[in-house]
Amino acid sequence: MQSGTNLPRVRDYNQGVVLDAIRVGSGISRVEIAEHTGLTAQTVSNIVRRLLDEGLVIEDGVDPSGRKPRVKLWLNSGARYAVGALLDRDEIFMALVGLDGRILARAHRPVDQQQGAMGVVSQIVLATDLLVSESGVPRNKLVGFGLGCPGPMDHDKGVLYEPLDLFGLNWHAVEIKEALQQQMGVPVIVDNDATAAAIGERWLGGRQRSRNFAFVFMGIGGIGAGFFIENQIYRGDTTNAGEIGHMTLNPEGPECFCGSRGCLELYSAPSSLLKTIRQRLQQGEKSSLPLAGLTFAQVGQAAQEGDQLALEVIQNSARMLGFGLISLVNLLDLRLIVLGGRYMGYVAPFYQAEIQKIFNQRLLTRNVRGVDIETSIAGEDAGAVGAASLVFHELFSARLTELRLVP
Amino acid sequence: MQSGTNLPRVRDYNQGVVLDAIRVGSGISRVEIAEHTGLTAQTVSNIVRRLLDEGLVIEDGVDPSGRKPRVKLWLNSGARYAVGALLDRDEIFMALVGLDGRILARAHRPVDQQQGAMGVVSQIVLATDLLVSESGVPRNKLVGFGLGCPGPMDHDKGVLYEPLDLFGLNWHAVEIKEALQQQMGVPVIVDNDATAAAIGERWLGGRQRSRNFAFVFMGIGGIGAGFFIENQIYRGDTTNAGEIGHMTLNPEGPECFCGSRGCLELYSAPSSLLKTIRQRLQQGEKSSLPLAGLTFAQVGQAAQEGDQLALEVIQNSARMLGFGLISLVNLLDLRLIVLGGRYMGYVAPFYQAEIQKIFNQRLLTRNVRGVDIETSIAGEDAGAVGAASLVFHELFSARLTELRLVP
Repeated sequence: MQSGTNLPRVRDYNQGVVLDAIRVGSGISRVEIAEHTGLTAQTVSNIVRRLLDEGLVIEDGVDPSGRKPRVKLWLNSGARYAVGALLDRDEIFMALVGLDGRILARAHRPVDQQQGAMGVVSQIVLATDLLVSESGVPRNKLVGFGLGCPGPMDHDKGVLYEPLDLFGLNWHAVEIKEALQQQMGVPVIVDNDATAAAIGERWLGGRQRSRNFAFVFMGIGGIGAGFFIENQIYRGDTTNAGEIGHMTLNPEGPECFCGSRGCLELYSAPSSLLKTIRQRLQQGEKSSLPLAGLTFAQVGQAAQEGDQLALEVIQNSARMLGFGLISLVNLLDLRLIVLGGRYMGYVAPFYQAEIQKIFNQRLLTRNVRGVDIETSIAGEDAGAVGAASLVFHELFSARLTELRLVP
Repeated sequence: MQSGTNLPRVRDYNQGVVLDAIRVGSGISRVEIAEHTGLTAQTVSNIVRRLLDEGLVIEDGVDPSGRKPRVKLWLNSGARYAVGALLDRDEIFMALVGLDGRILARAHRPVDQQQGAMGVVSQIVLATDLLVSESGVPRNKLVGFGLGCPGPMDHDKGVLYEPLDLFGLNWHAVEIKEALQQQMGVPVIVDNDATAAAIGERWLGGRQRSRNFAFVFMGIGGIGAGFFIENQIYRGDTTNAGEIGHMTLNPEGPECFCGSRGCLELYSAPSSLLKTIRQRLQQGEKSSLPLAGLTFAQVGQAAQEGDQLALEVIQNSARMLGFGLISLVNLLDLRLIVLGGRYMGYVAPFYQAEIQKIFNQRLLTRNVRGVDIETSIAGEDAGAVGAASLVFHELFSARLTELRLVP
């Protein structure tokens, strides 16, 4: 059965809607907010008054005509702060972020997976302490910590599950939220890295990211997706939606660590590309790329300089990702795909071109409407900013499902 | 930007929630409705009074204790009627349905695609007239007509687009809603066949279908899916979500009419199975199946009787569908898959067993939680009942997105 709603829920929701409008429309007037949200001028005015009192919003710019309603509103970046960390297989990326998504400080640390999950937790706690104290941000304005990492997980409980390709396989259920929260003393949110990146992209992206989209997030070994659907983040029934990297592209293909075969990320993840290039170099193929110490940045640069091996491997990867995205778009009917993650910067134009080509040929709805393929506004920071944004999203965003009386 | 909400929207939504509770909990009391929906007793009481006045709901069964609130409530099946039609490549299936999803009358007609879309429209209009007049249902209680058919389409405008594998390819955009509405004189809703089937399954299925699920709908030549996500039907950005039949299972596979290659339905649709069996019979393979006039019902029956060819072909089809569903569940994280459509009845146990096996081996979240695979409650009527339910769903269901002031 479904849940009803009531006035207090509606008040919270409408406050989220107004805050959302101020974030997206940065420099928006009360009149414009009313136009865009459908709320009455009186409701908007009451909510804005409350947001000003709480210091979440600032007003500026006296209108030439002198009429108050044209005063412009912005999020108050310094009103609240959050720290986010993206946990990848080899490194932790961290960011201290203001309420409007602005980055105040960054850090990154290599991860020694031998130390196990609780060792990684201690490492994160220390690094967060350092980041905050060096920035000079007042502790009492730090409203939470967000962690983005690969799944599967229970986002609500903050527990990581097997067959997570992180920390090895001797961990059955890592209660990472609980552990972080105890040591940090602020609320902690744990989410899928790609979901976090999608939330960050939207929080940071203003008007450009106010539509529904899938954020395709590329880590070193994995590919995930975060979805905004009907203006709401979509996490699925067990909060494990978006595992685009484990779509089956070839049922008889090579084995994946996840237990399946022919998964997309076996063909398209940066680590797979590096493996293929090393193999082909060992077979004596001509290329400007070195066999020893090969990095993905080098591959991207070599492709830009016309290296045939680099180009071919990237295009194959992009083609396979494109086929996965055909299935995704045919299933979810999205109009925008955002490509991001720390490795996408090097290769984005190649991916965009190849995927667009495949969409034009193969998408079922190609005669109804096109799908845009864009790169992340957050760039290489997408993961860490996304993780920090989890906190703001939880506290301040307008979520339709929160209107419901029974969760 | 997002839209706010207001009191009138909330009232409509809560009325939908209460009607939903009465439908799902058929024989539910006011007190129980309040418990399940989170609404106050007073709100529930007011809404029920309104529903009784409109005749949508009936109350019955005096409580032994004599306390009014324990009186039980049901949907009034005869309060409203709708006609639904499922348009498949070879036949039209129709049903006249009461408000609670009960079928009053059925009809089916072969489709002559040579007559073109407008010929099919005339055929549907005549058949609907006959169905209603023969049933003796009063015309003024017929609140609408629903059509389910394969996509791509624009559900809102009721326009069918290429590369629709129906009516041939000489139609670029069939304005079928407009055409039907003009000739019928009642509101018409056009939707994807699988989406309609999902809505029908939920409308009819009471408690058993009150969870999120994907309805996998098998037509003669195509496979589609309809999604309930967060208790809401999900149609996607251009109302073309759910095209599971066009997921890429082999990027280098055979060409599909849709323009892509290696689509799931090329391996798993009933027409593909019939083709494979005919080829193998022509190559002299031993089987109890006839080469001439082979039907899918015969294949299903032969499999049940242990015919090796039938079994093998069905299992291959089920395996490929299973791989597609692995991708679907890894993307959307659903807990229930409902298999249905007019061909599923013959083969459902084989499909269930095979898909369950693949899920146990390959699903990324298999250590988090299982996924149930069930067959449709509506059975062979899923398509037609689903189409009729489109009308009731539009008029009476609680839709979160309808809370929004700006569409």
